Amino acid sequence: MAPLYAPSLRSRLAPLLLFLQIGFIVIYAFYTETESHVKVDRITFSNLYTEFQDVNVMVVLGFGFLCTFLVRYGFSGSGFNLLVAVIATQWGIILNGIESWYYRGKIRIDFKSLVVAEMCAASALIAMGAMLGKTNPIHLIIITLLEVSGFVLNQWLLQTLLKVQLLNCIMLLHIFGAFFGLMLTWILHRNGSKQQFEKEKFDSRSGLFSMLGTLFLWMFWPSFNSVLVDDHSLWKKVGAVCSTYLALAVSAVTAAAVSVLSSPKGKFNLIHMQSCILAGGVAVGVSMSAVHQPWEAMTIGFSAAVVSTIGFRYLKIHMQLAFQCHDTCAVLSTHGLPGLLGWLAQLFLQIRDSDDHTVAIRFAVYHISALLITIALSLSMGIITGLLLKWNFWRPPQDKKCFDDQAFWEFPHLAVRK
Amino acid sequence: MAPLYAPSLRSRLAPLLLFLQIGFIVIYAFYTETESHVKVDRITFSNLYTEFQDVNVMVVLGFGFLCTFLVRYGFSGSGFNLLVAVIATQWGIILNGIESWYYRGKIRIDFKSLVVAEMCAASALIAMGAMLGKTNPIHLIIITLLEVSGFVLNQWLLQTLLKVQLLNCIMLLHIFGAFFGLMLTWILHRNGSKQQFEKEKFDSRSGLFSMLGTLFLWMFWPSFNSVLVDDHSLWKKVGAVCSTYLALAVSAVTAAAVSVLSSPKGKFNLIHMQSCILAGGVAVGVSMSAVHQPWEAMTIGFSAAVVSTIGFRYLKIHMQLAFQCHDTCAVLSTHGLPGLLGWLAQLFLQIRDSDDHTVAIRFAVYHISALLITIALSLSMGIITGLLLKWNFWRPPQDKKCFDDQAFWEFPHLAVRK
Amino acid sequence: MAPLYAPSLRSRLAPLLLFLQIGFIVIYAFYTETESHVKVDRITFSNLYTEFQDVNVMVVLGFGFLCTFLVRYGFSGSGFNLLVAVIATQWGIILNGIESWYYRGKIRIDFKSLVVAEMCAASALIAMGAMLGKTNPIHLIIITLLEVSGFVLNQWLLQTLLKVQLLNCIMLLHIFGAFFGLMLTWILHRNGSKQQFEKEKFDSRSGLFSMLGTLFLWMFWPSFNSVLVDDHSLWKKVGAVCSTYLALAVSAVTAAAVSVLSSPKGKFNLIHMQSCILAGGVAVGVSMSAVHQPWEAMTIGFSAAVVSTIGFRYLKIHMQLAFQCHDTCAVLSTHGLPGLLGWLAQLFLQIRDSDDHTVAIRFAVYHISALLITIALSLSMGIITGLLLKWNFWRPPQDKKCFDDQAFWEFPHLAVRK
Repeated sequence: MAPLYAPSLRSRLAPLLLFLQIGFIVIYAFYTETESHVKVDRITFSNLYTEFQDVNVMVVLGFGFLCTFLVRYGFSGSGFNLLVAVIATQWGIILNGIESWYYRGKIRIDFKSLVVAEMCAASALIAMGAMLGKTNPIHLIIITLLEVSGFVLNQWLLQTLLKVQLLNCIMLLHIFGAFFGLMLTWILHRNGSKQQFEKEKFDSRSGLFSMLGTLFLWMFWPSFNSVLVDDHSLWKKVGAVCSTYLALAVSAVTAAAVSVLSSPKGKFNLIHMQSCILAGGVAVGVSMSAVHQPWEAMTIGFSAAVVSTIGFRYLKIHMQLAFQCHDTCAVLSTHGLPGLLGWLAQLFLQIRDSDDHTVAIRFAVYHISALLITIALSLSMGIITGLLLKWNFWRPPQDKKCFDDQAFWEFPHLAVRK
Repeated sequence: MAPLYAPSLRSRLAPLLLFLQIGFIVIYAFYTETESHVKVDRITFSNLYTEFQDVNVMVVLGFGFLCTFLVRYGFSGSGFNLLVAVIATQWGIILNGIESWYYRGKIRIDFKSLVVAEMCAASALIAMGAMLGKTNPIHLIIITLLEVSGFVLNQWLLQTLLKVQLLNCIMLLHIFGAFFGLMLTWILHRNGSKQQFEKEKFDSRSGLFSMLGTLFLWMFWPSFNSVLVDDHSLWKKVGAVCSTYLALAVSAVTAAAVSVLSSPKGKFNLIHMQSCILAGGVAVGVSMSAVHQPWEAMTIGFSAAVVSTIGFRYLKIHMQLAFQCHDTCAVLSTHGLPGLLGWLAQLFLQIRDSDDHTVAIRFAVYHISALLITIALSLSMGIITGLLLKWNFWRPPQDKKCFDDQAFWEFPHLAVRK
Repeated sequence: MAPLYAPSLRSRLAPLLLFLQIGFIVIYAFYTETESHVKVDRITFSNLYTEFQDVNVMVVLGFGFLCTFLVRYGFSGSGFNLLVAVIATQWGIILNGIESWYYRGKIRIDFKSLVVAEMCAASALIAMGAMLGKTNPIHLIIITLLEVSGFVLNQWLLQTLLKVQLLNCIMLLHIFGAFFGLMLTWILHRNGSKQQFEKEKFDSRSGLFSMLGTLFLWMFWPSFNSVLVDDHSLWKKVGAVCSTYLALAVSAVTAAAVSVLSSPKGKFNLIHMQSCILAGGVAVGVSMSAVHQPWEAMTIGFSAAVVSTIGFRYLKIHMQLAFQCHDTCAVLSTHGLPGLLGWLAQLFLQIRDSDDHTVAIRFAVYHISALLITIALSLSMGIITGLLLKWNFWRPPQDKKCFDDQAFWEFPHLAVRK
């Protein structure tokens, strides 16, 4: 049998990218503006700029290098991540600005709109984590556009119907992204994943690159959680940073302990450590508006790391065997479960802090509705996207070419070398 | 034939470095001061410090790791980059301070003088990119000293003769560095480059290290372009950051599209992606003072990425075969052409915004003169430096030892291992 | 003979970690608080947050990746570093807050307490550097707890007995950590180190990862030295940043020169370059409060790099052969000697600046006492810790498993692969 070459993407991908990009430029030309001759508060500038940079580093570098753990998929992991992030950000700015465009005729571009759009991009990157290595770049672009649209729609629904604050809406990105990705990978299930994909492994080199990405996420997570906290009362922001830092610290220790405890030989697992040390950041982020004391954040971080590590160790394989749902980066354990835990923690904390029963019940109803809407929307958007992607017109990579850079990247010098 | 050992640099390099460094300390001891007992504006401190850090990260880490893509030249790529950066910065502070020394007797050292000096260092690093792998460290030091001198001279000429603003002068660093480097590599042409150098290639490891450096440049480029924007009107700074971010985002998408489109098999090329996603930052930086709306920046970013990717794909080999000009990092396509494009964009935008013809023509004459002076000076400094480096006293590495760390670095443990 | 398996840590490490972490959460629940409803100065917030982030990056990423230079110990180098850092920080916050707890009943958690605790963590990481590769994680946790306790005790003694300022106390972390680590490695001397450990080497991959960590330390060191400088007079902070930057720049050039000069073949040594370019930051940090002019910082940086590079080249092997003290990361040359040099520089500069003899002598007596107390305490804590660790209950790794990730980390896919 002749060797299978990966199908060429020249006639599909390049026109799609150019069309998208020129379309974005045209939309931006007619409907956006930056403020000029406006007095900007210098302190807010300085704060926001630093935090925008931190979020940008997380999205571009953190998620990008986290995805390099696959031994032959490093170029794609980091390169496609950048592509998805910039498309999602440009698309997110437009979608988030629709309301402002409707009322004012223009979408304003400033640090805040960039940060919110980068967070929408983060939700798309989480969804992408579940599909890592099993798609081609065209798939990724379609996923990105639909995921961001779904997420912004969800945000609009929650804000309009349930009057949920922006911070709480955005922080549901972990739950939305994870369930969207899971549904997608379930629909696009491949036979190759019945036995383990042969190239789905890490080595000491790719593990370290991935560690690097993880540490960037870990280090800048406090900015991610605090950037949208109302900055008129700056002590809340200080509290958010300190809480997130402590939750992450607790997560790191706990994930290490549970990883050793659940290993028959008493060893650490690098990939567990990488994903699960972030669980505290996810959970505290979702429950941010209700966390007031350090120990609350630490307890949430502890539980999230336990849930996440156990989920990674046992749930990932179970999902694959029982439900034929192959989740490359285990986004269910890394973002889905800690997100749900954070949601639950917020419910408990808010009820505890309520003065009377009526308020508590009212809050609970709203809170549960918000979750149900989010999950319903993410699952249905996942199904729609999945069905669209099943179309062979997009030239999916063969099972043999999954998790392999050579399907998408030129290696001219390597060819000479070997 | 006996194996060729790389010539020892002990008797040349160490004395040169020590002499230079002690010389710098003596000059700093007599002619510099830091401000003391002066009331520093706290907000300016905070802004400037963050931006200085970002520029520092770009110069030390970004350029350093961008240069690690050569498979056997990683230590030299990152190590020599640091050496060049710190020598250029110390030398740049002195040269930039000559005027202040002349009038006040002392050179003041603060964040602004450090940032400007780091940008001079960036122009030296760009020039170095064209020569990467074909020089020894002594060459690099001489190149650094002469390139920074030429760049500061150019800046002084433009400011004195044509009253060009500091921001616009400094941003010509891309054009100055690229043409200086090209002229240098043309004069120092080696026969080994007739056929491809055998070690001039990347692999999946060195590609990822290089990707890391690229992403740091990409992420912090908004600070690079905005740091010298007048901060009395902070909205200009916000605009500069947003414009640069959008231009970079557009560049990333466009570079990917053009890379796939120009590849016979429809694949991405990692090295194209790395260099060309930065083209938007270069072009918008050069035209920064005339860019006011997001779509202008995006259009510039789009064109820059197209020019840069096509230049990388076709021009690099052409330059080598036709003109015997071997440009390792393709600085012509990465910095030279996008820089010229940015210059052109600035010309158009400024003429469009002019109220009457007289002002527009006057501006055009000044703008064209500035470019001609810069190119003339960079080419002539390149020729002078090249002729000086032809002297065999500096012990150039043999063709066989080009692109190889083993000529300059000890590998004691490796020797034992193999 | 059957192959030796590394002893399983499941029954020791996991309970220890869980016990510690739950203990911390309980202590934090009862004795800590974050400020609420307090008016936070927005500018201070912005300054402190940036600097906290920089210190955090140094501790988590810089030290972590600096430790990845061992060819088979990358996962442990970066992973255990994170574990030690977060345990040390949580423990440091508690210990530093004891006084506040005694007077106010609560320990306040804000950016300053986090930064000070991270610096205590840095001293533990330095001590760990001397032991790198020869311990198991249980050892590291015990070392961390005792080292941080000793360091905080030392700080309390100096502040109470000698009225030393906080900045000067904290900066002794380099000296305390280095001598603690040296004493520890001397007591825990292993026979395997008589001849070189077979796996104690670097290659071109691990060298670059380590370079990455070094560059992060190098770039953010100005923040490390300036964060505790009194920010009521901001010009001091600007001076601290500029001085540290210049000292680091001088160190980089000087370390390169001395490395080439002391090499028989006139080549650079990557590991020398990495450790010794940081010597200027260490020395200037220790003498920070007395350094006023750039050239003073540069001279200190120059001397520190000379001492450090020569120490690394000749002293490390000598220590091992003569005193049976195997110092993996050469913390004596990297932190110990430059720290002592900085202490000496501070003594000279302060005496030079004194108005009369009485003040100078008084200062000298206090200054010398501070050093003696620090060294005495670090050595005795090192002895106590060392004797405790000799207990076989902790299951130390065998000599053959030193410097090897496989003793502690699962490599499931690798096993399949080879």
